[in-house]
Amino acid sequence: MCHNKINILQEDLYIINMKKDLGVLPAVFPMPVLMVGTYGENDTVDVMNVAWGGICGEDKIALNLAPDRKTLANIRERKAFTVALADEDHIKEADFFGIATGNKMPDKFARTGFHAEKSKNVDAPIISEFSLTMECELLEVREMYGDFRVVGKIVNVIADENILNSAGKVDPSKLKAVMFDQYNMEYYATGGKVAKAWNAGAGLMKE
Amino acid sequence: MCHNKINILQEDLYIINMKKDLGVLPAVFPMPVLMVGTYGENDTVDVMNVAWGGICGEDKIALNLAPDRKTLANIRERKAFTVALADEDHIKEADFFGIATGNKMPDKFARTGFHAEKSKNVDAPIISEFSLTMECELLEVREMYGDFRVVGKIVNVIADENILNSAGKVDPSKLKAVMFDQYNMEYYATGGKVAKAWNAGAGLMKE
Repeated sequence: MCHNKINILQEDLYIINMKKDLGVLPAVFPMPVLMVGTYGENDTVDVMNVAWGGICGEDKIALNLAPDRKTLANIRERKAFTVALADEDHIKEADFFGIATGNKMPDKFARTGFHAEKSKNVDAPIISEFSLTMECELLEVREMYGDFRVVGKIVNVIADENILNSAGKVDPSKLKAVMFDQYNMEYYATGGKVAKAWNAGAGLMKE
Repeated sequence: MCHNKINILQEDLYIINMKKDLGVLPAVFPMPVLMVGTYGENDTVDVMNVAWGGICGEDKIALNLAPDRKTLANIRERKAFTVALADEDHIKEADFFGIATGNKMPDKFARTGFHAEKSKNVDAPIISEFSLTMECELLEVREMYGDFRVVGKIVNVIADENILNSAGKVDPSKLKAVMFDQYNMEYYATGGKVAKAWNAGAGLMKE
């Protein structure tokens, strides 16, 4: 008969999931699907799909662009750009803006049938069909390990009234922004509300 | 009788949503909820919640940190950090990591009851409870408009096997990563799959 006694401390009882090395991957999720709007020669509108970018200050946004991008040339020339957020209703055009290049397809924007008007604040186009757009002045372009990092100062945000909540703030459930899954090269929708920030974990402050 | 004829060209028939200026806002959505893991003095584990960061190259990640952050001091000392993704099942702890500071609460990590072990690849902790972690070597810390931008080289990604699909890639529906809504200071879940990238917009290439 076996009378071995097994002592397990409470704090050691947690589920151990088997972990696996996946190697080197740009594994952040979610990534945004940023629609970067610029003017080229003769005020031609260009829009590019950028997932490698995001907020880097209360009024700043950074984009990481390959050296040959038409958008990079346009930003250097005009010192401005806009950043809209791709949404479910315009996923076809948003994806197309990531496939086609303004370098080889001068009618890139026109093909979508989308509409644009010039920002009142910066020398860049606002795409009418997108419901939220940041208007940005160029702060700096800096080479970084072969690519270029563009930093813009957000001087205004313009949004469709129908994506705002009763407090006048953007409601993600109305915005319906999509996100990029770089593991499988797919787009995902915004899900439901999970918790309030600076609130869900407040209990641990007191323990 | 009225016989006025109204001509409307097909291309002019699109819905015009009323747009409204919202002023200066860090309006990117979604933002990730990055769990930045570092070692402090005596190998004390610290974890910080960072929304202003993301991928800036195939093997690079950038974080934007305020000058007084414990995490920033730790990264400067150890030249390494890890970045895990917050998920629905650990939203309480993830939020707490954004409320508490390691500067004033030395037992910050211990309070959660979470477990950590040292990365095999870099001088930083891997938090057992998070299902995906990027192990990063410090490439540079640079002051930028009063804050600090930290760039890390991703040398490996380690993930729980139960978040992988049959192809061995991360499945966002199993990862259940959360995202930050800075409009209303809330967390949202990952929604459903919307479309395949470089595919949804392919039809426009031929038109």
